[in-house]
Amino acid sequence: MTRRRPMRSDIAWSTTDTITVKGLDMCRDILGKVSLGDMAFLEMTDRLPTPRESVMFNAIAVCLVEHGLTPSALATRLTIAGAPEAMQAAVGAGLCGLGSVFVGSMEDAARLLQQSMPRPDTHADTAALARDLVDRALASGKSVPGIGHHIHKPVDPRAPALFAIAREQGFDGPYVALMTAVAEEAGRRLGKNLPVNATGAIAAIACELGLPWEIVRGIGVMARAIGLVAHVLEELRNPLAREMKTMVEEMATAHHRPAA
Amino acid sequence: MTRRRPMRSDIAWSTTDTITVKGLDMCRDILGKVSLGDMAFLEMTDRLPTPRESVMFNAIAVCLVEHGLTPSALATRLTIAGAPEAMQAAVGAGLCGLGSVFVGSMEDAARLLQQSMPRPDTHADTAALARDLVDRALASGKSVPGIGHHIHKPVDPRAPALFAIAREQGFDGPYVALMTAVAEEAGRRLGKNLPVNATGAIAAIACELGLPWEIVRGIGVMARAIGLVAHVLEELRNPLAREMKTMVEEMATAHHRPAA
Amino acid sequence: MTRRRPMRSDIAWSTTDTITVKGLDMCRDILGKVSLGDMAFLEMTDRLPTPRESVMFNAIAVCLVEHGLTPSALATRLTIAGAPEAMQAAVGAGLCGLGSVFVGSMEDAARLLQQSMPRPDTHADTAALARDLVDRALASGKSVPGIGHHIHKPVDPRAPALFAIAREQGFDGPYVALMTAVAEEAGRRLGKNLPVNATGAIAAIACELGLPWEIVRGIGVMARAIGLVAHVLEELRNPLAREMKTMVEEMATAHHRPAA
Amino acid sequence: MTRRRPMRSDIAWSTTDTITVKGLDMCRDILGKVSLGDMAFLEMTDRLPTPRESVMFNAIAVCLVEHGLTPSALATRLTIAGAPEAMQAAVGAGLCGLGSVFVGSMEDAARLLQQSMPRPDTHADTAALARDLVDRALASGKSVPGIGHHIHKPVDPRAPALFAIAREQGFDGPYVALMTAVAEEAGRRLGKNLPVNATGAIAAIACELGLPWEIVRGIGVMARAIGLVAHVLEELRNPLAREMKTMVEEMATAHHRPAA
Repeated sequence: MTRRRPMRSDIAWSTTDTITVKGLDMCRDILGKVSLGDMAFLEMTDRLPTPRESVMFNAIAVCLVEHGLTPSALATRLTIAGAPEAMQAAVGAGLCGLGSVFVGSMEDAARLLQQSMPRPDTHADTAALARDLVDRALASGKSVPGIGHHIHKPVDPRAPALFAIAREQGFDGPYVALMTAVAEEAGRRLGKNLPVNATGAIAAIACELGLPWEIVRGIGVMARAIGLVAHVLEELRNPLAREMKTMVEEMATAHHRPAA
Repeated sequence: MTRRRPMRSDIAWSTTDTITVKGLDMCRDILGKVSLGDMAFLEMTDRLPTPRESVMFNAIAVCLVEHGLTPSALATRLTIAGAPEAMQAAVGAGLCGLGSVFVGSMEDAARLLQQSMPRPDTHADTAALARDLVDRALASGKSVPGIGHHIHKPVDPRAPALFAIAREQGFDGPYVALMTAVAEEAGRRLGKNLPVNATGAIAAIACELGLPWEIVRGIGVMARAIGLVAHVLEELRNPLAREMKTMVEEMATAHHRPAA
Repeated sequence: MTRRRPMRSDIAWSTTDTITVKGLDMCRDILGKVSLGDMAFLEMTDRLPTPRESVMFNAIAVCLVEHGLTPSALATRLTIAGAPEAMQAAVGAGLCGLGSVFVGSMEDAARLLQQSMPRPDTHADTAALARDLVDRALASGKSVPGIGHHIHKPVDPRAPALFAIAREQGFDGPYVALMTAVAEEAGRRLGKNLPVNATGAIAAIACELGLPWEIVRGIGVMARAIGLVAHVLEELRNPLAREMKTMVEEMATAHHRPAA
Repeated sequence: MTRRRPMRSDIAWSTTDTITVKGLDMCRDILGKVSLGDMAFLEMTDRLPTPRESVMFNAIAVCLVEHGLTPSALATRLTIAGAPEAMQAAVGAGLCGLGSVFVGSMEDAARLLQQSMPRPDTHADTAALARDLVDRALASGKSVPGIGHHIHKPVDPRAPALFAIAREQGFDGPYVALMTAVAEEAGRRLGKNLPVNATGAIAAIACELGLPWEIVRGIGVMARAIGLVAHVLEELRNPLAREMKTMVEEMATAHHRPAA
């Protein structure tokens, strides 16, 4: 039996009387001192946030917790209706839908921003970078991520709210400028008003916080898990899944069944 | 088509220019003002926590984020190894294992505590209630939840740490007293030292915070989603899943294969 | 590092030039000779079915493949709508809802039957066993599983169809008799016509086939995975998930939003 | 409330006394007459297979049921260890890993074959098509799917076994020829012996059966669900998940813990 590569993990380890997470002692350094959002930052970056980073990171995470009756929330509610003994699987089922269509656009935006400007550069020509970025996005046959919104018109109100916090906390840097320039360029190119949406604002701010684009989707995944627990609770107390199922089944197969 | 029961949800709703969650305006009342942990409290209880509740709730949630290479973390890492394009499903797969064996004992402990003392009662005879509770638990053929630990001996250090925070923040009430009495009674009955563990401490404190036992597992589910994102990241950067798979396969099927 | 228990698996193993599953050589003994349903029987019982067992087992498995727009199918469709690149996770999400409410009743029925009659006994007094079984089921505060149906009235047509196959193939034994007696006894006790439904018929036949009740739910899980793939395909070609989401959201939150 | 698009599903529907799947009556046309594999074919293609199609389709599906202690099987086993009451979620968790790395290569191979030859063409110049296909695959920076195997050397024995069945059953057509030419071309280009593997054989045969590449991954998903049920059963009877977890945790974090 040959070992090709030693297994190694540096997230957490325990002894009989200590638990260590990312080098901090759980009981002495973390419990009662670190909030859940700051713990998430620690898990994602290997260090605790500064006070300004804490406000900013918590704001973008909080923004992703709850969007009402999303497809994910409905999947969770349909699942708990069939398996009320397995809340964890209902949340897991809901998370499975956070793919390329919904949460993925946040990842796409962060990726494009970081590919355009690998390191934050306050002297960058954001207008030129935005032109190139929009070119690339349109050339790939996909839409430009992070701009426009099918419900929140003319402006997704979360974007200016998040950008205002970014200004207050000192994260109003080159990625926010580039994202804004991208929205302007894409709007000009497509002849529509397409302001930065919540997804684009979060992506730009995640870049300002130094998070690599590969992990940006993770903020959405962890935040939404919180929201899905709330939907489990409401479904247990005031269910709607069965009624939804009956209604959809009747409507979608009416053409096959004889008139009542 | 008859409707049996109107569908109704009161978690969140949107208009073109507002997003409302639990009655609060996302942009005006929440973003930049509410931390991720307090948002989770809002989602679970329909109100923001007081400062003391915030410290206490964040402490129990944080305690559940990360336990290292748990079965859940390994399931997440094996899943991302096969589907690196679907981080959300890897986290979802990891959550699916938070059932009766691991996170369920927290729910069991909270249920037993609330069944023993449906409302917090500072005059309760906790010794008598503990005897009854241990009787019931043992009669059901299961172990008493929330006490002892197979690794952390003689004491799970998280329990006294959480109880110290409970004292500081004013949550050192009748449920904490009852859980402590349960550990003493069970230890006496079974002739072993079985102090309250992290699970038991969290369950008792959740009761002090007024959370119904049915939702206690949800704290573990949401918290662990954060930790599983960290395991996704480490697996992408420094993988161990394939090596684990090869090693386990070789060891578990060696008796079937001819000697090399 | 002490090993407490050697890891061992006897399902399948490989060498450079062979793959063995349950002792059979994949290329020589299985491919082209064993059908998918018979392979499932092999996986569940460690041997290939006889021709009669094959007809019977395939019939009960096929019966569980497709029930139209079930909660599981809707969860799968909502998930693929958000993550079209991860079909496997959409099927996984749909499976998560096959819990105590839907597929679990099949497991419950099989468990009650096997607890009543641990081994098939053609001389058993099925009427007396049925009285005891119904007593136990009602005493536990749950309904008697495997009888009645909220849509298929007066009779779930799958039950007599499956029982007819059981007669033809020689599986019309004591468990089928006991299940039938249970339905009669429960109907008498509750003053309603409650014939055996598909769930009860499948449970009884699974007992006749010698399958332990602990694995009966697995027949439903594997069969439904097939059906969920069909729902993925239809959702990709002719989607309904987004429309469902919009409709449910509008209906369930109308009381919170201002009139248009 | 405006409806943008009517919801419509044509997979299955019910009345009080009938269940119809893909136009067939479940009780009259399917139960006892259609095997599980043929039911899967019906679900994927809207018609029952011919006898030759049945042998061929069952062979490729059976080939995907069981590969031993794969990452998916281990994820399922780790999940059932934590949530033994939710077998369905353990299977669901295991399926989540059937992504681009493992089952995805089957989809990739089928996609490349169908893009090269949109309709089966017995007069095609397969050598020329193979050169173009390999060019495109290598240009995209990915490996050529469906060829070579890291364990089964020099030849994955399933590929010739499946191709032999294809010859017997009349599916030894232009896609099989093209896949074989691709393996030869890639081997020549890369200077290695890279024969068609099981994945490539299944992809080519799926093309011969007329299955669109978008649904080829679904064959793997449904088949593996069967295998994962078998791993649930073995884990319940003869567990290895906890031992695996303990071993991996000890090995991967040994460098952080003090010597015993």
